[in-house]
Amino acid sequence: MSEARFCVDLNCDLGESFGRYKLGLDEEVIGYVSSANVACGFHASDPTVMAETVRLARAAGVAAGAHPGFPDLQGFGRRNMNMDAAELHDAVLYQVAALAGFCRAAGIGLQHVKPHGAMYNMAVKDMTMAQAICRAVQEFDPELILLAPGGSCLQKAAAECGLGFACEVFADRGYQADGSLVPRSQPGAMIEDEDEAIARVLRMVKEGVVRTADGQDIAVQADSVCVHGDGPKALAFVKKIREALTAAGVEIVPLAEIVRK
Amino acid sequence: MSEARFCVDLNCDLGESFGRYKLGLDEEVIGYVSSANVACGFHASDPTVMAETVRLARAAGVAAGAHPGFPDLQGFGRRNMNMDAAELHDAVLYQVAALAGFCRAAGIGLQHVKPHGAMYNMAVKDMTMAQAICRAVQEFDPELILLAPGGSCLQKAAAECGLGFACEVFADRGYQADGSLVPRSQPGAMIEDEDEAIARVLRMVKEGVVRTADGQDIAVQADSVCVHGDGPKALAFVKKIREALTAAGVEIVPLAEIVRK
Amino acid sequence: MSEARFCVDLNCDLGESFGRYKLGLDEEVIGYVSSANVACGFHASDPTVMAETVRLARAAGVAAGAHPGFPDLQGFGRRNMNMDAAELHDAVLYQVAALAGFCRAAGIGLQHVKPHGAMYNMAVKDMTMAQAICRAVQEFDPELILLAPGGSCLQKAAAECGLGFACEVFADRGYQADGSLVPRSQPGAMIEDEDEAIARVLRMVKEGVVRTADGQDIAVQADSVCVHGDGPKALAFVKKIREALTAAGVEIVPLAEIVRK
Amino acid sequence: MSEARFCVDLNCDLGESFGRYKLGLDEEVIGYVSSANVACGFHASDPTVMAETVRLARAAGVAAGAHPGFPDLQGFGRRNMNMDAAELHDAVLYQVAALAGFCRAAGIGLQHVKPHGAMYNMAVKDMTMAQAICRAVQEFDPELILLAPGGSCLQKAAAECGLGFACEVFADRGYQADGSLVPRSQPGAMIEDEDEAIARVLRMVKEGVVRTADGQDIAVQADSVCVHGDGPKALAFVKKIREALTAAGVEIVPLAEIVRK
Repeated sequence: MSEARFCVDLNCDLGESFGRYKLGLDEEVIGYVSSANVACGFHASDPTVMAETVRLARAAGVAAGAHPGFPDLQGFGRRNMNMDAAELHDAVLYQVAALAGFCRAAGIGLQHVKPHGAMYNMAVKDMTMAQAICRAVQEFDPELILLAPGGSCLQKAAAECGLGFACEVFADRGYQADGSLVPRSQPGAMIEDEDEAIARVLRMVKEGVVRTADGQDIAVQADSVCVHGDGPKALAFVKKIREALTAAGVEIVPLAEIVRK
Repeated sequence: MSEARFCVDLNCDLGESFGRYKLGLDEEVIGYVSSANVACGFHASDPTVMAETVRLARAAGVAAGAHPGFPDLQGFGRRNMNMDAAELHDAVLYQVAALAGFCRAAGIGLQHVKPHGAMYNMAVKDMTMAQAICRAVQEFDPELILLAPGGSCLQKAAAECGLGFACEVFADRGYQADGSLVPRSQPGAMIEDEDEAIARVLRMVKEGVVRTADGQDIAVQADSVCVHGDGPKALAFVKKIREALTAAGVEIVPLAEIVRK
Repeated sequence: MSEARFCVDLNCDLGESFGRYKLGLDEEVIGYVSSANVACGFHASDPTVMAETVRLARAAGVAAGAHPGFPDLQGFGRRNMNMDAAELHDAVLYQVAALAGFCRAAGIGLQHVKPHGAMYNMAVKDMTMAQAICRAVQEFDPELILLAPGGSCLQKAAAECGLGFACEVFADRGYQADGSLVPRSQPGAMIEDEDEAIARVLRMVKEGVVRTADGQDIAVQADSVCVHGDGPKALAFVKKIREALTAAGVEIVPLAEIVRK
Repeated sequence: MSEARFCVDLNCDLGESFGRYKLGLDEEVIGYVSSANVACGFHASDPTVMAETVRLARAAGVAAGAHPGFPDLQGFGRRNMNMDAAELHDAVLYQVAALAGFCRAAGIGLQHVKPHGAMYNMAVKDMTMAQAICRAVQEFDPELILLAPGGSCLQKAAAECGLGFACEVFADRGYQADGSLVPRSQPGAMIEDEDEAIARVLRMVKEGVVRTADGQDIAVQADSVCVHGDGPKALAFVKKIREALTAAGVEIVPLAEIVRK
């Protein structure tokens, strides 16, 4: 008699320093995650930070992904920008290829692509943007996995062009009945209590269910949990969630093992 | 009885437009050259210009190379900058990989790398810079060919790390006894007469010899002639040199056929 | 017996070159306009182009204005961006002050400010943006004139903070009943016929009336007509409109003479 | 019977954050200095950081100066760049004017200009660069004070164009017999002992003398001491040096009171 095997990926944005500017506790958080979303020089990072981050991921045995963003360093890629589909396609291809180059030089593969910030948020709901992003990824390497929310335009676009897809869930965010996040402006947007957040993650991973802000249970596919390493508190939470998952018999594995299992 | 076969590559900088700014007669000159040095977004170009330029090269059957430069769009990569070896290595790797991504998406290979402007001129004489550049190219893809002047630090550094190398010559520049170019500030720097320039190129290609500014004949290896497409006059000269080479029985072929013959 | 005196300003975007990239027939068009909107280095231009453009305006006796845009050189400031009010305020203040510095060094005054591209189009309809822009201008120099469409949020915001305001009209664009432009996607957006365009301008200036796309006559305040110098055809039109205005007894004078008359 | 009055300025680089990237303990160090060198958006900072830094200086009653640098955000303005004299002049004018705009909007004056990083180090020894910088400052506002090392090309160029000049000294650096700093690569470059550093500063201020690395006493004019606020240790040293100066009867006053006394 065999038990079910539960596994999940922990993904974290890394390599967001730039020149003399340092951001994030990369060296510390890398030991607790399984996939790294590495900034590509448009919203954050520069070639030298990218090289160092890829070496850090290699040393830690963490899978590397590209984290392309809008060309807006001052705004950290968090300001909506109206790029047309061709510009967006080309900007994503450029960034993914550049990061893949550092992986190739370091002797590791590129596992996935996760759009950043405003690009991610806009493409979740905008099919034209989602298609531009997914086509860029697919044209560069059809074996790459797109990491984004389940049910989003990004998932649909990935399916359209035959890209592997992994569903990202958030430990600290409330969900609505349609599976989308409660907007930050509304009550229930944030799960403030850490233990509740962890209990929700465990339920998402083991039961495939999450309780929405208005009290329903809905199905959710939790391939990867987004965690953060941008401060001591975030770092402590990553350790805590990792321990809770492990204690509950959930294995922490890179995306590729989940999507292609 | 077989005759000797003569062949040479004609290389041209292409894809130097940026956003709304147009530069160069790319569509016209591409029909006359065999290798394109494609700007990579640091000294000129942007992701969309790169995508378009790679498609243009593919359509014309012209081999594509990366043309990385200093991160200095305002100065068009022509201002000397002191990047340390790691920064330079990473900046070159980033640009080469990004361009290779557009080639991959377009279904063509990347043939070569030619550094641009001040990076090229500095690395010709600076072994530390030359090594940083060549290692970046070699780590990304050891099959790439480095295109630079014969006898330069770039040639030595390419040899050190096992990169293929092609010697670039200039139709319109005077040479010194050590094989280097006469500085632009000195008499004899420019070959103003077009017919003389063409005669010199033919002699370099067929005899492997060039007459220096002080009247000696020195050996020169002419794998590729650098031509320009940045104006009607330059374009007319490209046509003229191509016709003269063809009339003299010299085949115009991409670098790869020369270096790996 | 005195006749009514009619006068209007002709404004043109100038100084949009960048580094090695040239844009616009600045030297030629400057002779036909009365006010220059000078790009400030965010969507176009660089410090050296700004210095040269201010000298050009001084030599031509044309009044200089700042033409601030979004920080988006690749998109030429034409892509919508979500800057918050403080960021927008500060970006406008920075650009206006920088251009004013070149005017001061050249010994001329700064006459006006006209936002560029997407910043202009968004602020026309967005009161928060319009207020951020107008406050920045007013805080830097309350004597500056804001140049923008009549009836826009920019006009309201300028009034709120006591800034002088000049109404800009377009020779080649159709108007709607509320005084706004017919969107480019709709029929009647463009006035293709040059003679019709000129007749409309004359009527706007002398009668204060324009015929809308749906055939009504509405009141319009035409302080300044926007013209272009980005190509031979545009340049020819500037000459033609200037001649027609002069022939009809309309004086071409800088904004300041109109707003403060 | 009156005693001699001793006074000196403490200057510190401030406003070096950028977008989401924070750098420096500005809020803490501002309370201990008399003049702030405010970054202008080329090597560090952005318009919003500039606005905030000027407000911080105003609130603290600290005099504001412009701190222009090379257009090299990735390199923090610390990489040598070959800008020609016109480009350098225009880049300095642009940055100084932009910062002056924020001062004007905040209702405070601009006191001085201190070039940053590689621009400072290069111009100390390069008369062409020094003249380009000083002319830009003088053309913008002849009342501004240039802050740089005594005996440098910057001092000579300031004198040539009639700019006020203040001599900057360094507490933690060794001096050579000609008054220049011992290069960092040589022994004696750094004064590691804090008490020794403070004793040297006191002697420079009160006696106008410094002991060189090879043991001679040379004359030095100490108008302003450069201090740093980029970490807790630097901050502690600023407090210590301020206390020592005050205890020794030296008043800490802004540059303008020293240069124009």
